[in-house]
Amino acid sequence: MSFDYLTNAPLDEAKETYLEKLKKAGFGSLRETKSAAECPGRISAKAIYAKISAPHYTASAMDGIALRADSSYGATATTPVILDKDEFTVVDTGDPVPEGCNAVVMIEDVIWEEDGRVKLYASAAPWANIRQIGEDICAGEMILPSYSKISPGAVGAMLAAGVTKADVLKKPLVGIIPTGDEIVEPSEDPKPGDVMEFNSSIFSGMLKDWDCIPVTYPIVKDDPKLIKEALSKALEECDIVLINAGSSAGRDDWTTQCIAELGELIYHGIAIKPGKPAILAIAEGKPILGIPGYPVSGIIVIEEFLKPVIDHWYHRSAEPIPHTKASLAKSVVSSLKYQEYVRVKLAMVQGKMVASPLARGAGMVSSFMKADGMLVIPQGLEGIEAGETVDVKLLRPIEELENTVLAIGSHDPLIDELADMLHAEDPELYLSSTHVGSMGGIMAVKRGESHIAGCHLLDEESGEYNYSYMEKYFPDGGIRLVECVGRTQGIMVAKGNPLGITRFEDLAKPGLRYVNRQKGSGTRVLTDYLVKKYGMDEDKIDGYEREETTHTSVATQIAGGSGDAGMGIYSAAKIYDLDFIPVCTEQYDFIVADFAWDLPQVQKLIEILKSEEFARRIDALGGYTLEHPGEVRRRF
Amino acid sequence: MSFDYLTNAPLDEAKETYLEKLKKAGFGSLRETKSAAECPGRISAKAIYAKISAPHYTASAMDGIALRADSSYGATATTPVILDKDEFTVVDTGDPVPEGCNAVVMIEDVIWEEDGRVKLYASAAPWANIRQIGEDICAGEMILPSYSKISPGAVGAMLAAGVTKADVLKKPLVGIIPTGDEIVEPSEDPKPGDVMEFNSSIFSGMLKDWDCIPVTYPIVKDDPKLIKEALSKALEECDIVLINAGSSAGRDDWTTQCIAELGELIYHGIAIKPGKPAILAIAEGKPILGIPGYPVSGIIVIEEFLKPVIDHWYHRSAEPIPHTKASLAKSVVSSLKYQEYVRVKLAMVQGKMVASPLARGAGMVSSFMKADGMLVIPQGLEGIEAGETVDVKLLRPIEELENTVLAIGSHDPLIDELADMLHAEDPELYLSSTHVGSMGGIMAVKRGESHIAGCHLLDEESGEYNYSYMEKYFPDGGIRLVECVGRTQGIMVAKGNPLGITRFEDLAKPGLRYVNRQKGSGTRVLTDYLVKKYGMDEDKIDGYEREETTHTSVATQIAGGSGDAGMGIYSAAKIYDLDFIPVCTEQYDFIVADFAWDLPQVQKLIEILKSEEFARRIDALGGYTLEHPGEVRRRF
Repeated sequence: MSFDYLTNAPLDEAKETYLEKLKKAGFGSLRETKSAAECPGRISAKAIYAKISAPHYTASAMDGIALRADSSYGATATTPVILDKDEFTVVDTGDPVPEGCNAVVMIEDVIWEEDGRVKLYASAAPWANIRQIGEDICAGEMILPSYSKISPGAVGAMLAAGVTKADVLKKPLVGIIPTGDEIVEPSEDPKPGDVMEFNSSIFSGMLKDWDCIPVTYPIVKDDPKLIKEALSKALEECDIVLINAGSSAGRDDWTTQCIAELGELIYHGIAIKPGKPAILAIAEGKPILGIPGYPVSGIIVIEEFLKPVIDHWYHRSAEPIPHTKASLAKSVVSSLKYQEYVRVKLAMVQGKMVASPLARGAGMVSSFMKADGMLVIPQGLEGIEAGETVDVKLLRPIEELENTVLAIGSHDPLIDELADMLHAEDPELYLSSTHVGSMGGIMAVKRGESHIAGCHLLDEESGEYNYSYMEKYFPDGGIRLVECVGRTQGIMVAKGNPLGITRFEDLAKPGLRYVNRQKGSGTRVLTDYLVKKYGMDEDKIDGYEREETTHTSVATQIAGGSGDAGMGIYSAAKIYDLDFIPVCTEQYDFIVADFAWDLPQVQKLIEILKSEEFARRIDALGGYTLEHPGEVRRRF
Repeated sequence: MSFDYLTNAPLDEAKETYLEKLKKAGFGSLRETKSAAECPGRISAKAIYAKISAPHYTASAMDGIALRADSSYGATATTPVILDKDEFTVVDTGDPVPEGCNAVVMIEDVIWEEDGRVKLYASAAPWANIRQIGEDICAGEMILPSYSKISPGAVGAMLAAGVTKADVLKKPLVGIIPTGDEIVEPSEDPKPGDVMEFNSSIFSGMLKDWDCIPVTYPIVKDDPKLIKEALSKALEECDIVLINAGSSAGRDDWTTQCIAELGELIYHGIAIKPGKPAILAIAEGKPILGIPGYPVSGIIVIEEFLKPVIDHWYHRSAEPIPHTKASLAKSVVSSLKYQEYVRVKLAMVQGKMVASPLARGAGMVSSFMKADGMLVIPQGLEGIEAGETVDVKLLRPIEELENTVLAIGSHDPLIDELADMLHAEDPELYLSSTHVGSMGGIMAVKRGESHIAGCHLLDEESGEYNYSYMEKYFPDGGIRLVECVGRTQGIMVAKGNPLGITRFEDLAKPGLRYVNRQKGSGTRVLTDYLVKKYGMDEDKIDGYEREETTHTSVATQIAGGSGDAGMGIYSAAKIYDLDFIPVCTEQYDFIVADFAWDLPQVQKLIEILKSEEFARRIDALGGYTLEHPGEVRRRF
């Protein structure tokens, strides 16, 4: 029964063909009449002409007296002219100029006689200080051409010209139909297997930004009858229909079949990744788009295919998307078959924009939030090497990126608190972080790809933290080691400590499922050291090869029951309400590159480290000690 | 009684002091809780943390079978492993991974035995094809710091992380109080002296663009009691109050006094032009701004003083305003006492941006609509010379300007129709025009400041139009003369022809008030020629020195009764329902600079001139004849 062919149409061809077919099917904008006050931001559906002139009467441009210009002729500084009361009229700015008058003399230039007459020491030029009818706008004049965005100023001009309402393009109603047996409304307490329906909220936000009115329909089960009913209803009520999920060739995917029964399927399967299973169809002259279920895929399909449809509706050209050149921090591989979209973090380091690729899973909704830019790798390329210059679509204003301090290195929840405090203190400054462990941080600073890096690396011989690593990896100097916090490392276990862990050696207990940190992280260095110190065999620790990249992700696995114990910091255990067996206290510092030291965002960060508010927040997180946060421990 | 001191505070000092005083008075943002779906575009009032992890359970990342990884160990291409039915579970993408399983094998790699068992030809790595809990977002992780704009993607992340509502900054309520005895609601049929209240619509549009909620109050008469009542009510109901007009030192201006009675007057009078009589005050910890009555002054005062207040509320830095360097087409003078704002038209001509100053009256609401940019002349400068390079704030995107054909020259309503057709035909193209008469157009093209120019100049000797002028003013060539229309020139008189005008010589009739066109316009050249031809004396024509710059503005004066007759074209008379006494037919052409000929917008325009739609529109305007529109009459 299922309708499972899947093409691999090149993106540009599919976009162009689809739009052409829509135009042929008669798809285009509708119009509506709106009062002038509702017009700002709307698009004129036809040319708007002035109904009356502005000013609509001959008006005085000054406070003064109105008169016939020739009655003042001959007046000079030595031979003033005196006007009788019936030869002039007092007028305020904006007052109509009385019949028969053709000039206004400013009140400052009028000398009043005691009998109410006035004396003028200069003659008035005809039409002086008078706003002629239509000086601003003439009746009949075109105020705005068709398909123009109506600005607040244009509304002023319309009203001044007696145009109290206008025909504008209707905002398209875009129906969104979420489908899937596993889909549930968002909640704070979903059951395992429940997939929360947040795509319609993402899509609605995007649609509003594009001047559409989104209409989200109730979730529809995977049943062809129900899906077809929902599609028919949305087609009747809306100008454009999006149906979400159910567009891959898997089980229970009836969408393609239902769409094909209602209209014409133009494409199913586009050569983009993510986003491949997109459906482009037309029914009753309206676009129906089948949007893949994963949020990242959905966002990309909507941007690539729906945006041009909306632009066509509004008769506007695509807005230019700001781009930047950037140096790629890490190689990315790509499939020859697809055009691939890679979200990247961007930072301005030493006057050069650096792009670091983010996790590429289509299910990673966080990646769009963390991303500063999007790298598009065209179909037919196998990938791009680290260090190459790439063109990146900006997702954040470049000014923000220039004011961002980038922290690539060891993870600690306090980094998020610092990001919050920095931007709250100064709205122009931002902190952006990526968690790659202490060694990863050293390398990022060394390669000039990060301003600062969190670091807590134990020297097994000296028992000291960080110093020897700085000496080894920065033999020529170029950095400062800035003190941050002391923090308690320990074993995180489920609430109530069901396996009765009391000391590090217990991690080798049979049946205990360990969750480890990735190699190169300070916590892994510490764990490896402790394993050696206690003469343990890492092969005997079940899960030693299971690597997570942050304290919280280790805590998450334990809280979720997929692991029993993991090394981490107290604050992570506290967030998840886990039990915590302290093992040792370590020094967590920031490596700050010399090239970044004088940046305002870095100096502000140092200031914040020294602040009472930082101490307050650190105390709230728990498990930290503060000595001299923000002080330079040593310069290398 | 009136409170009429007026300072001349420098702009930057006033802005800074006012904002500082507001901060000291405790003015700042309020917050409210909104559902996630309402959050896109809003600003977070505090950091948003994940409530649950995403995924919130261990999920299969593929359609396949879930198993314990070690049950597959040893499987190779030559030695498959067979799993019993109780050793695996079939899972779809997104399904929870059953208790005890720690890997998923893709369905494509599973070979089914007839008895329901499965054969694997490769072993599964632990945690392969599994989305771990928190892979996307970990509970407790900061999703967004305080004071961040919430993107649609961020809303997806919030919902995925169980955050169904968030504290956001409240949109400030901004009360707008229009005042003035002469002010009336906008209508199509105002009485002389009525000033229509359209400022609140302009300000409301601007405020919405800045994420405020405007609240417009009814118009208040010039009565201190009523003004004070209105201010008190608005102060109680809104976060910010604007009171419009009544802030100059003229008659009936009670605003300053009323504000001073309710709160603290910080400034009255700023060294800017227009905008000088602005009032900046604080009452009950809230900003009250007295906005000058003229729309242009109002817009400038709101942008300069209210925008920073809103940015402070939202804890955001001012958005960078796009600028461009441009060459000034005409000298502008400026007062040493004020910072002056000059609206300019911009065009890209021969790869160089050219800025032409527009009319500067504060009452010219049309100027903001016509303006492409704003030139700010700092206090202390006497002006800027033509040809100097200036920095201009862009009011339209630079891409639009680059796709605009600029027509500076003789006026005809058909130019507006062409602008309408050009943009309707191709949403990327625009036509922008300024009316300076035929001679002005020749000069603009000659100086490289305009692409094309409308022109209808009669050679008295040959009786031909335009040719001899082209030879004289473009001795080295560089232009094409493109045929446009033949048009009927004649005398426009009031409906019913009350003065009984039948021929040109009647213009010298005693008592007839003539309205003339400016020197250098084709119509003036024609009029001067006819005066000479008929042996008339221009001093005997009352109003011969009264100059208007367009056909429609002459028609406007006659329709408005401030003049009795004027030379002009039939289409202008028709718009105003005037009577028209034909005098002659003339040739109206376009001069097209060679440097502009190949521009897509120019080529499209030529195409349109040749189109049937143009002929249809020309016919609707009336008074034109078409021979070969769009054809090159001669190349010079």
